[in-house]
Amino acid sequence: MGTATPALSPPAAPAGAGYRPPGLGFAPVAADVAEADRILDHTLSAYRSPFGPLIEHLRHYRGKRLRPALLLLTAKAVGKVTPQHHTLAAAVEMIHTATLVHDDVLDEAELRRHVPTVNAGWGNKVSILLGDMLFTHAFHLASTVDRRACEVIGEATNRVCAGELRQVTERGNLHLTEADYFAVIDGKTAALTECCGRLGGLYAGASEEVAGRLAGFGRNLGLAFQIADDLLDLVGTEDAAGKTLGTDLEQQKLTLPVIHSLNRLPAVDADALRAAVRAGEAGLGRRVLHALEKTQSVAYARRRAEEFARAARQELECLPRGECRLILEAMTDWTTRREK
Amino acid sequence: MGTATPALSPPAAPAGAGYRPPGLGFAPVAADVAEADRILDHTLSAYRSPFGPLIEHLRHYRGKRLRPALLLLTAKAVGKVTPQHHTLAAAVEMIHTATLVHDDVLDEAELRRHVPTVNAGWGNKVSILLGDMLFTHAFHLASTVDRRACEVIGEATNRVCAGELRQVTERGNLHLTEADYFAVIDGKTAALTECCGRLGGLYAGASEEVAGRLAGFGRNLGLAFQIADDLLDLVGTEDAAGKTLGTDLEQQKLTLPVIHSLNRLPAVDADALRAAVRAGEAGLGRRVLHALEKTQSVAYARRRAEEFARAARQELECLPRGECRLILEAMTDWTTRREK
Repeated sequence: MGTATPALSPPAAPAGAGYRPPGLGFAPVAADVAEADRILDHTLSAYRSPFGPLIEHLRHYRGKRLRPALLLLTAKAVGKVTPQHHTLAAAVEMIHTATLVHDDVLDEAELRRHVPTVNAGWGNKVSILLGDMLFTHAFHLASTVDRRACEVIGEATNRVCAGELRQVTERGNLHLTEADYFAVIDGKTAALTECCGRLGGLYAGASEEVAGRLAGFGRNLGLAFQIADDLLDLVGTEDAAGKTLGTDLEQQKLTLPVIHSLNRLPAVDADALRAAVRAGEAGLGRRVLHALEKTQSVAYARRRAEEFARAARQELECLPRGECRLILEAMTDWTTRREK
Repeated sequence: MGTATPALSPPAAPAGAGYRPPGLGFAPVAADVAEADRILDHTLSAYRSPFGPLIEHLRHYRGKRLRPALLLLTAKAVGKVTPQHHTLAAAVEMIHTATLVHDDVLDEAELRRHVPTVNAGWGNKVSILLGDMLFTHAFHLASTVDRRACEVIGEATNRVCAGELRQVTERGNLHLTEADYFAVIDGKTAALTECCGRLGGLYAGASEEVAGRLAGFGRNLGLAFQIADDLLDLVGTEDAAGKTLGTDLEQQKLTLPVIHSLNRLPAVDADALRAAVRAGEAGLGRRVLHALEKTQSVAYARRRAEEFARAARQELECLPRGECRLILEAMTDWTTRREK
């Protein structure tokens, strides 16, 4: 695949019949996603009275409901969605929201989905405590299901936090390796999507083996998703011509294409590029794009994302054929082709 | 009780035989506290390699081990300390540590126990994520016990976070009521000590009724402890003569004696005092002490703390007589009499 124009191509028409682009609804589980939303709202409703506008504001943090939908679609594909799935889907979405609230503090972000972040509106202190509250309520919700659910969610969240912590401590490390990068995204993104696949399967009565494959589906999907997300940050903006840098590079956070490029460039060029990144040099965007092109690094990263998407799709072979499986398969395509 | 000298009196000799001042060891469960420490260390050891010095630094956050000791002493008083207790004691201490790490970010604290805080040494970002990591590992530890343990810990942590969130959002509210104050401390302090009493009892085979009384012991002890802590902040410093204000009042955080005083003063004096607090006026310390004296508010707060301590002691009557019960009783005395 050529990379003369490094912007991501527009999403192709998805393969599977019955496919609904995420964000526009996951038809077979739309009512279940709504029920998970209801549980989430109910859980936070105890807080409305003292913190009404704050809790209300959290609605803006809800996006595609990718994680609840993943959990519920795998459940339905295996057998049947149960009330346990609704509770666990709400818990997983709360954990994801907690990480977004804390991420916005870490990144000093002012806007999310075109509205002010919690930290911009209420300050860092409230944001830290609100994130903590979301974490603990998610665990408490899981405890209404059973011990195993607490364990699966606890393990996933351990990995999420370790990945996030590693990402923050590696910021500014311009010698980050691919292995380091994968350790970060395996934690911060893939652990939770893996957990969704596993919980969806387990509580629909899947065997440990099938649940393990669905976990593998979620993990690979998460890895593909994050590589694609990092590519969008780097070369997917309107400004792909190189006038501005992606947020990651601005924050000296290396992602897969840049790591690949630094490894493939002659050492002297790589060191010069590192120095330019460190200095936040003018015209850096154009320089980075030029390097990525020279080393075919966007194509490389896209290929890696597609490999993970394909691996995710293969794990779905454990499922009976049907509408839910088709949608999950289509999600693996969408992951590497989406525009945002 | 007169309050001409509002500094807290030095701790009297404790009543119970077998008493060890907390911090100097809880003899009958000293080995169990050490085992809980070992579990905590082992849980975090997975992180040593990338984050060695950071994890090592957390040792400085360990203080009196009040919460593990509470859990283990109630367990031993009921019957027998089990491996489940050790795991749960480690989990509870990790939750407490997580709140300290996040508190230090909220308060922009630079020192804790005479060494730099995590935020002072590694920055706010690492502190936020380290706190998150401690929370999630605590929940994961609980999930190795059973569903009920996850539920009890989840409920407690929900209340802790709600109390902390309320405290932060009420900062600067100089019309805080006693009910608001108790809602804050019931969450931020008493929820976790209550949880210690309940878990200690439950996993030693206590009936729900006895476990409920031990939870009541922990809750009342926590309330007494926090009121005494707030009193120490206000009038227990070397500078009790009024040269400096306590940290709480500096941060416009009203605690029980000040709330009481504002309610008892003539309205015009109360409003003048509020204006002085809001302005952080010079000589404010002396002015606040004068008000507290006039309205006997230190004596009032001390009396309230003693009431809670007494209520805590009464709940212990459900326990068989013995060394552990004596120590727990002595802790109720120590709580309101300690100097730090």
